[in-house]
Amino acid sequence: MATQGQVITCKAAVAWEPNKPLVIEEVQVAPPQAGEVRIKILFTALCHTDAYTWSGKDPEGLFPCILGHEAAGIVESVGEGVTEVQVGDHVIPCYQAECKECKFCKSGKTNLCGKVRVATGVGVMLTDRKSRFSINGKPIYHFMGTSTFSQYTVVHDVSVAKIDPVAPLEKVCLLGCGVPTGKDLYLHWLNMNKLSCCLLLNSRCLGAVWNTAKVEQGSIVAVFGLGTVGLAVAEGAKASGASRIIGIDIDTKKFDRAKDFGVTEFINPKDHEKPIQQVIVDLTDGGVDYSFECIGNVGVMRAALECCHKGWGTSVIVGVAASGQEIATRPFQLVTGRVWKGTAFGGFKSRSQVPWLVEKYLKKEIKVDEYITHTSTLPEINKAFDMMHEGMCLRVVLDMFD
Amino acid sequence: MATQGQVITCKAAVAWEPNKPLVIEEVQVAPPQAGEVRIKILFTALCHTDAYTWSGKDPEGLFPCILGHEAAGIVESVGEGVTEVQVGDHVIPCYQAECKECKFCKSGKTNLCGKVRVATGVGVMLTDRKSRFSINGKPIYHFMGTSTFSQYTVVHDVSVAKIDPVAPLEKVCLLGCGVPTGKDLYLHWLNMNKLSCCLLLNSRCLGAVWNTAKVEQGSIVAVFGLGTVGLAVAEGAKASGASRIIGIDIDTKKFDRAKDFGVTEFINPKDHEKPIQQVIVDLTDGGVDYSFECIGNVGVMRAALECCHKGWGTSVIVGVAASGQEIATRPFQLVTGRVWKGTAFGGFKSRSQVPWLVEKYLKKEIKVDEYITHTSTLPEINKAFDMMHEGMCLRVVLDMFD
Ligand SMILES: NC(=O)c1ccc[n+]([C@@H]2O[C@H](COP(=O)([O-])OP(=O)(O)OC[C@H]3O[C@@H](n4cnc5c(N)ncnc54)[C@H](O)[C@@H]3O)[C@@H](O)[C@H]2O)c1
Ligand SMILES: NC(=O)c1ccc[n+]([C@@H]2O[C@H](COP(=O)([O-])OP(=O)(O)OC[C@H]3O[C@@H](n4cnc5c(N)ncnc54)[C@H](O)[C@@H]3O)[C@@H](O)[C@H]2O)c1
Ligand SMILES: [Zn+2]
Ligand SMILES: [Zn+2]
Ligand SMILES: [Zn+2]
Ligand SMILES: [Zn+2]
Repeated sequence: MATQGQVITCKAAVAWEPNKPLVIEEVQVAPPQAGEVRIKILFTALCHTDAYTWSGKDPEGLFPCILGHEAAGIVESVGEGVTEVQVGDHVIPCYQAECKECKFCKSGKTNLCGKVRVATGVGVMLTDRKSRFSINGKPIYHFMGTSTFSQYTVVHDVSVAKIDPVAPLEKVCLLGCGVPTGKDLYLHWLNMNKLSCCLLLNSRCLGAVWNTAKVEQGSIVAVFGLGTVGLAVAEGAKASGASRIIGIDIDTKKFDRAKDFGVTEFINPKDHEKPIQQVIVDLTDGGVDYSFECIGNVGVMRAALECCHKGWGTSVIVGVAASGQEIATRPFQLVTGRVWKGTAFGGFKSRSQVPWLVEKYLKKEIKVDEYITHTSTLPEINKAFDMMHEGMCLRVVLDMFD
Repeated sequence: MATQGQVITCKAAVAWEPNKPLVIEEVQVAPPQAGEVRIKILFTALCHTDAYTWSGKDPEGLFPCILGHEAAGIVESVGEGVTEVQVGDHVIPCYQAECKECKFCKSGKTNLCGKVRVATGVGVMLTDRKSRFSINGKPIYHFMGTSTFSQYTVVHDVSVAKIDPVAPLEKVCLLGCGVPTGKDLYLHWLNMNKLSCCLLLNSRCLGAVWNTAKVEQGSIVAVFGLGTVGLAVAEGAKASGASRIIGIDIDTKKFDRAKDFGVTEFINPKDHEKPIQQVIVDLTDGGVDYSFECIGNVGVMRAALECCHKGWGTSVIVGVAASGQEIATRPFQLVTGRVWKGTAFGGFKSRSQVPWLVEKYLKKEIKVDEYITHTSTLPEINKAFDMMHEGMCLRVVLDMFD
């Protein structure tokens, strides 16, 4: 291929400084080194995690950088020693690597791989601790090991999931964020006490339902918050055969759409004098089997735990609370058999399971299209971020070459 | 049998009032009604739960009553419809019933049976909501559905575990308390927010390790508090093949004995400046696989969660915190893959599993004798309670007919 081994100059949205508009620049993308893959990004979605780092609130944010981590593309070239993908493969770059060799990958208990984090956590590649992006010689940092707001990007081979080439890349790009962890990982390693990654979409939440909670047929499920995350959780619960899916939101506008995602009944906490956990316990003869907090409110996290049935009810935290906030409850809640979990880890393995999610999508077993409420282009990326913050927007997908 | 169908007059320790010495009285024990079993109690152990209710701090304590719930004896007679035990059977009365028919028993997820709680929670029998104990016509309340500080007691048939007659009753009496829950159950039903039952001995803690946490071969385990409960947890972890069992206690006198129960290394938090969770994380390359809080201190409960390995570490609360106290942590701890549980429920099923525990004891797979540090007699019961509160005492067993 003509570009192989060469520096490619292409368009990318560069975040020069926190909280300043992204600038579309001509960037130089160096060829992949050993263990690296250069990908032509065709479609990328926007995500709250990008916005979070861009805003400057992320203490680990490095500037200038190229954001973006939910994308799909085609392998342009591979570095030395790369065997699992080749030129022309359709791929999804995953911010959570899966090396299949480290303590985490081998544990069988988590999808958190430790292989490349020391590099991706600080915006560079593992081999030489340098960036592959530059503008007239000035390096631009990588982001989450993905940097998909560029027409070409370089990623570690352990972070690339090869997918079925019949899958529409403009849709399945969303599945890249699904794999729990990336950002959480960095934060944890940097010993931070908050999570900023939105993670999701479909797959993080389906993972919460299928991998973390293991919702069984006939279960009663409560979903707190009916935004993108709550809807994906509801969808996963429905696919697992839950008999009742109770949606809780303070915004009744959310109820109608939620029906399509499987929610069978609705509660607005504002309609009740009693604490919401009591309302739910009363409605369900003792509590729900599974609850999911999809808001990021520590008070709601408590309610979500306490509305679980004693003896077995399990509550999963999916929402991300503001930095420094704490959850609390009486130990009695746990001693009487409830279980409190979270869902960043223990989810899908990236390289092994993203392709499987793509197959599920192709078989129409999971929704993806329904989350894409808006489309846009790279030059319009700043406006696209504005769209994302509109109330009824779920996901915006950019066509990178339009 | 001569006594069958008759009122039996025998000795019992009666708690007339909270916090006043128990009085050995001649009590009348009515014959068992439908679904009831009258048991000749040969041995009973003392437990902190008895002391707690006796102290008057238990808001559900009813007086006058006959305390006691860790015992072993022989069936003297059975009421109408009782089929699973007969006269002469060796039995352990269990404060946690197992009816095999209710929502809880059928769930497969908890050992919490709901069958007789409405009666046992208020000190009476289910059939007629009356007590079978009286003194000159004045009723004396039952306690935890067991009241084993009497030479004869009446219990519900769903609360009786029939055991191998070769087992020494003066030892296996301890296994009666092991079955999680009784008291917790009542408290929960009465919507209380604390637990008072010590539960245990062996079996509650073994249950915490085997049923709640499911500790695997090779696991790294932390045990906070090396009293009776912590020792039993350590023993269970050892039996599960844990590779390292780290004992944490502020009293170094506890370390020596703990070695016999499987603890492989010791930490006194007072020897460290860093928070104890950090000390443990550093010692274990990222944290333990399982931790158990066996003290009842909410601050330690937090440390026990936070010393778990991210991605999979599971912390189990066994200790009982003071009423009204709360546990807290950052949600990040859970979102990064730790799991927080408790152990009152989800443990052993009483009628089905107590006999199995007895078999394990007979095969020397679990310790019981080692917990019995003192023996005494019914007339000496007040002194025996004083002994129980001595530092190195684990369990006192009373010979009821000595
Ligand atoms: N958006 C993502 O891609 C993503 C992915 C993973 C995790 N998260 C985290 O999950 C949470 C939800 O994300 P989202 O994108 O679905 O957000 P969202 O804002 O679209 O949805 C949140 C919903 O919760 C409702 N809500 C707010 N306060 C409430 C309360 N007290 N009681 C009941 N309902 C209440 C809102 O009305 C809204 O419908 C956030 O913490 C986010 O950081 C987001
Ligand atoms: N004794 C029982 O039968 C029983 C059964 C089930 C549950 N429980 C509950 O379990 C807990 C422990 O019971 P136990 O009988 O083993 O008590 P115990 O008093 O014999 O043991 C507690 C141990 O914890 C240590 N300790 C106290 N504060 C500490 C701290 N901050 N850090 C480290 N170590 C500390 C003490 O030195 C002691 O060795 C209690 O909450 C009790 O209610 C007791
Ligand atoms: Zn790995
Ligand atoms: Zn994302
Ligand atoms: Zn039952
Ligand atoms: Zn007890």
